[in-house]
Amino acid sequence: MSRQQAERLDAEDPLAGFRQRFYFGEPPVIYMDANSLGRMPLQAKTRVEQLLTNEWGDRLVEAWHDWIDLPARLGTKIAPMIGARDGEVIVGDSTSVNLYKLGMAACDSRRTRSRILTDEGNFPSDLYVLQAIASQRGLELLTVPEPSDAVGAIDDSVALVSFSHVNYKTGQRFDMEAITAEAHRHGALMLWDLCHSVGAMPIDLSGCAVDMAVGCTYKYLNGGPGAPSFLYVNERHHRSLRQPIWGWFGQKDQFAMSKEYLPADGIASWLVGTPPVISMAAMEAGLDITIEAGLDAIRRKSETITDALIGWADEMLVGLGIELATPRDPARRGSHVALRHPDAFRISQALIAQGVLPDFREPDVIRLGLSPVYTSYAETFSAIEHLANTLSDRGYLDLPIQRTRVT
Amino acid sequence: MSRQQAERLDAEDPLAGFRQRFYFGEPPVIYMDANSLGRMPLQAKTRVEQLLTNEWGDRLVEAWHDWIDLPARLGTKIAPMIGARDGEVIVGDSTSVNLYKLGMAACDSRRTRSRILTDEGNFPSDLYVLQAIASQRGLELLTVPEPSDAVGAIDDSVALVSFSHVNYKTGQRFDMEAITAEAHRHGALMLWDLCHSVGAMPIDLSGCAVDMAVGCTYKYLNGGPGAPSFLYVNERHHRSLRQPIWGWFGQKDQFAMSKEYLPADGIASWLVGTPPVISMAAMEAGLDITIEAGLDAIRRKSETITDALIGWADEMLVGLGIELATPRDPARRGSHVALRHPDAFRISQALIAQGVLPDFREPDVIRLGLSPVYTSYAETFSAIEHLANTLSDRGYLDLPIQRTRVT
Repeated sequence: MSRQQAERLDAEDPLAGFRQRFYFGEPPVIYMDANSLGRMPLQAKTRVEQLLTNEWGDRLVEAWHDWIDLPARLGTKIAPMIGARDGEVIVGDSTSVNLYKLGMAACDSRRTRSRILTDEGNFPSDLYVLQAIASQRGLELLTVPEPSDAVGAIDDSVALVSFSHVNYKTGQRFDMEAITAEAHRHGALMLWDLCHSVGAMPIDLSGCAVDMAVGCTYKYLNGGPGAPSFLYVNERHHRSLRQPIWGWFGQKDQFAMSKEYLPADGIASWLVGTPPVISMAAMEAGLDITIEAGLDAIRRKSETITDALIGWADEMLVGLGIELATPRDPARRGSHVALRHPDAFRISQALIAQGVLPDFREPDVIRLGLSPVYTSYAETFSAIEHLANTLSDRGYLDLPIQRTRVT
Repeated sequence: MSRQQAERLDAEDPLAGFRQRFYFGEPPVIYMDANSLGRMPLQAKTRVEQLLTNEWGDRLVEAWHDWIDLPARLGTKIAPMIGARDGEVIVGDSTSVNLYKLGMAACDSRRTRSRILTDEGNFPSDLYVLQAIASQRGLELLTVPEPSDAVGAIDDSVALVSFSHVNYKTGQRFDMEAITAEAHRHGALMLWDLCHSVGAMPIDLSGCAVDMAVGCTYKYLNGGPGAPSFLYVNERHHRSLRQPIWGWFGQKDQFAMSKEYLPADGIASWLVGTPPVISMAAMEAGLDITIEAGLDAIRRKSETITDALIGWADEMLVGLGIELATPRDPARRGSHVALRHPDAFRISQALIAQGVLPDFREPDVIRLGLSPVYTSYAETFSAIEHLANTLSDRGYLDLPIQRTRVT
């Protein structure tokens, strides 16, 4: 009955055709970890092979005439996905390094203020970066339980507010517009981490008057393992914010090799060193697929497929000790669903052994990340079916209790 | 006569066999820019294709069980090349970001000191990073004309001395042991940039008691365009130096996802965010070739082939306005040779049009970088022959005067 429903949803899915743009092994795994590492677009492989042979191989250093624009060209492709204007987004460095650059610049522009605000549930690396900035600048790092608690917690002593748009663990989505307005009401700068939302929904940084943002390209954008991150700076801050790591890719007229650092105009000033070209070239195919599919259609399917998953979980996991940790209201969640169970680690390991890849997050979360461009309803149904069987037969109790190291 | 000499030298070259481990296009370019971007090892292409299909493609997030160790595994391969102990080298981030991390940590460990010392001829990105650190920490950045002028310039007010081991423009090599000893005599920390020496000669960081180093993997190590850099911290500083960018890859017990940053033990604490896996996987083949060829043999050929180049230049470029900018004593140079000419830019462009790839550096340098593992004597001779013909027929005077953008 439910499987038939899944098959019908696949048949009616306007994005179903995009699935064939991705690589599937034989037999294909049931992949429920789109929000850790997106699947490989077939075109990414083609592009990397072309880069290796025809660029690095044949043209060698001359190929830099094309590569030099990669950080800006990829940024230009990402900009409309997040409601940014052209020239406000650039790709390079990891999310954590980009968060550091932006956070330092923000605090340096609000030198009379003594606090940074974040939330306890923010992604750990974001917490560490903010702890580092606070430590270096002699600031206090305040935390609220979650971003929606920002109202009332921000006052005129806060230089910077930094939250994740969608929580990496629970999948909760927060109100970017209202929280940004609250930060601005007290003169603080607002920095959003879009890692778990970009590519899964339209985002409107301009409309929400956001100051700064970072985001990951290897999750819903399918950019490849460890693909560099992007950063966004609203153009109204391009003259006033200055990043702390001065390097030659952020230098005005880079190849003049001037001895004095003079930041490039605009968003390019946020670059630092030579970017990892092969990883960046691999990224472009994933961006192109997102653009072609369209974020409105992507969001519609994301809501429908997470709804379907929650419905099947309600129906098939009843009485099996599972608790839903993600909001039932689709407007309040991203594209992954978190299920809590005290034995989440061993259950995840049992699923992996069956060819189902979920994600485990400490201490008790099984995270199921669904990509609207390649996850099918049938595959999602199968994942819940495997989970129901695993919980029922309790075979996972034979597995060792230990932590996995999957990112 | 000279061409016969070149052919004889190739026939006698104990490293000649390594040339076939690299990709050559058809017709092969005459490649004289080994110190900008090394050639592609055939194995790098094989490895990347395997990673795409069998790891990202087939195993998806499960492949992180292997990828997670890449920064340390690559560091372990680089360590013996630079006289480092295992556990003192790690790969990740760009050279400039790594220089920032090390330089900040060094200055923070010498808080009563007010100065940083470098040289005017250091690579511009190194100068910019040091300017950034000086600006943030309220320090003074002193410069000497070149690293050998450090004696007499370092006093007890200097926190950090940072030089390049081989100058990116002139190819001059500096005395790591003597300069490091001079820094230590005054209680300063010594940070070497190995970009233009690593992979082209044995380096002995332990023997020279060096404190910190960074280096590039895409030049003589043939790691691929924009491959991440490595950093070295002498183990005697592992407890006392603390880097400024705290991220989850530098966290102790990373996947426990603790909310408080606690640096990992040892060199791993210098990592920050998720590394660019595809670019890192491509790097390993180049490292393996260097290890197999051996740095003593590599250095012997480097000396012989740069000697041969200088000899041919003396003989064939006489009276054509060329001046040698690199020391004639092989002990005082790296593996590239710089020739000065007022029209260096247009001459370089004319050579490129002939299928010869040199490098131009502002304002008047033609840089010829020779890789002992794949550059042949015959190819080097041909480059000088093309240069002689270009200078003689003066066809380059028809080309536009403008700056190139090749890194």
